[in-house]
Amino acid sequence: MTRIAVDAMGGDNAPYEIVAGAIWGAKDYNVGLELVGKPDEIQQVLDDIKENGFRSDCGRAGHLHKIEVDYTKLDIKITPASEVIEMGEAPGAAIRRKKDSSIVKTVEAVATGSSDALVAAGSTGAAMASSLFGLGRLPGIIRPAIAATMPTMNKPLVLIDAGANSNSTPEMLHQFAVMGAIFSKDVIGVENPRVGVLNIGEEAGKGNELAKNTFNLLEECKDRINFVGNVEGKELFSNICDVVVCDGFVGNVALKVTEGTGAVLFKMIKHEFKSDFIGMILGWLAKPFFRRIYARTNYEEFGGALLLGVKGITVISHGRSKAYAIKNAVRVANEAVAKGMNAKITGFYE
Amino acid sequence: MTRIAVDAMGGDNAPYEIVAGAIWGAKDYNVGLELVGKPDEIQQVLDDIKENGFRSDCGRAGHLHKIEVDYTKLDIKITPASEVIEMGEAPGAAIRRKKDSSIVKTVEAVATGSSDALVAAGSTGAAMASSLFGLGRLPGIIRPAIAATMPTMNKPLVLIDAGANSNSTPEMLHQFAVMGAIFSKDVIGVENPRVGVLNIGEEAGKGNELAKNTFNLLEECKDRINFVGNVEGKELFSNICDVVVCDGFVGNVALKVTEGTGAVLFKMIKHEFKSDFIGMILGWLAKPFFRRIYARTNYEEFGGALLLGVKGITVISHGRSKAYAIKNAVRVANEAVAKGMNAKITGFYE
Repeated sequence: MTRIAVDAMGGDNAPYEIVAGAIWGAKDYNVGLELVGKPDEIQQVLDDIKENGFRSDCGRAGHLHKIEVDYTKLDIKITPASEVIEMGEAPGAAIRRKKDSSIVKTVEAVATGSSDALVAAGSTGAAMASSLFGLGRLPGIIRPAIAATMPTMNKPLVLIDAGANSNSTPEMLHQFAVMGAIFSKDVIGVENPRVGVLNIGEEAGKGNELAKNTFNLLEECKDRINFVGNVEGKELFSNICDVVVCDGFVGNVALKVTEGTGAVLFKMIKHEFKSDFIGMILGWLAKPFFRRIYARTNYEEFGGALLLGVKGITVISHGRSKAYAIKNAVRVANEAVAKGMNAKITGFYE
Repeated sequence: MTRIAVDAMGGDNAPYEIVAGAIWGAKDYNVGLELVGKPDEIQQVLDDIKENGFRSDCGRAGHLHKIEVDYTKLDIKITPASEVIEMGEAPGAAIRRKKDSSIVKTVEAVATGSSDALVAAGSTGAAMASSLFGLGRLPGIIRPAIAATMPTMNKPLVLIDAGANSNSTPEMLHQFAVMGAIFSKDVIGVENPRVGVLNIGEEAGKGNELAKNTFNLLEECKDRINFVGNVEGKELFSNICDVVVCDGFVGNVALKVTEGTGAVLFKMIKHEFKSDFIGMILGWLAKPFFRRIYARTNYEEFGGALLLGVKGITVISHGRSKAYAIKNAVRVANEAVAKGMNAKITGFYE
């Protein structure tokens, strides 16, 4: 049975929502768990949920559903960790200083083979640094990268690198393309994913040196990667590619600009509908429609981003994650393990 | 009287919509015009509009209003140009080869002092290249940059550089900050504009070398620039800064991702409301509200982006521009001339 290690202390809503989401996922996807953190706090949440259940909006903003999970019917291991790395701490220093922190111990669980994959909703930097340090890189991989999943009208788009490296080379971006395509196929279920380079024009020869050289590298191995050329920011969601590769600085800006644009548009919509009485009534009547759009674009559906290229599966969830997001993170981690994603990545370079 | 040179042949809707917008702007803002292109085609549009007027949605998507402009009551000069640079042509080669193209002649009108500023809706690359070549840089300016204007809930945000340079230095970004702030104050009307560096984290020390070094440079001259630190993509529209500086590659991606996100969200909304009968009725009733949101976020309101740092004022309008956008481009060009923006930019470095 696959076992997923979960940093029970990481994230704004830890430990309650994290533990709730973890056992919800364990039940739904039939996986074992290793909950890492302060044992008494974790046990208290488990007992509380066994008795009372918990409530979740199931990613649909609004009505809360009662979810019941009896942890005694699951395969759960609790692994103690006495410290927690906070959001503001410098990741590198923090993982060296806090050797008994929940994230370091969660990574250790995978490194020692006690678990098969991990989910962490605390400091992204700490999850990345401890995974890099504790798991090491897959053979042949220059630098691991973060693969983020973005909603579109069709299948979700993989953006890689979403922030692990802000000084990439074309060779790194080539590897991101390989890893992103395997992730898209195995976890998102896209047959023969189309790979594009995020660029400022569609024609070959456009963009900065990195984009131009990456284009050329990928053009050379079209027999192994379904390379479709340059993709502009405005075409990201137009179903012209399934995986888009870029430097982590650019990718992080793109990812967060998407978040910011979505937020300001929904704010403008709210503002307009509240501007008069008819609008208020229409807005109220239209709520179910807006909720469905919200659900489609909700980051919680995807559970989190993957750190690809390390010896292990690391799912990095949003710091604001609630139970529903963590449940999906467990699903993603389980999928990645079941499909043997890492073996396929190393296999590409053999 | 200020005179604005307009490339009458550039853009998807040239010459009709371009000429219509130009004379509309000339009438509304009381400026002289220099229409550059094929004289008979331009004259035909002028005569047609004098007789029949033209129709515009005034940036509000939907109902068309009839606009009447009698060109004989305006101060209009027609300057012949026999060639047109098409969207696909390589800008550098095209402006050298087509010396009698409308964009080259439009730039020449400003270079020779016949006009005070120019508006161009054709190939952005050609407008940039011919402005750089034909007007030259302002003294002390390393590289000109494109300042794009983005809608927010409050005053529009200036993003600079939106695509002129994809290999920037911290010194260049420092100058973009100065030019962007002067533009924000003079044309958008923001008193003491707040300047931020587009980055992947808020704390000092975050990001790539360019972002870090730009942060330090701007931090050193806080007495002359209202520098507010790093700004993340998701905070762009949260009213924490009025001007955001970045490399042109990153800026172009950010600008276009905003466009792409807006488009896919409106598409999702349409799709949801069309999914059942009640939705269709609600969607129909809610149309005026959505139109108001559309109008708020419509790029046409801003007329176009400015190429800052050249000896002259170049407004680069969207290739899809219709009359309303060109009218606003004339307004922006006129504003920039009236406020003596370029004198202030050179003044900063004296």
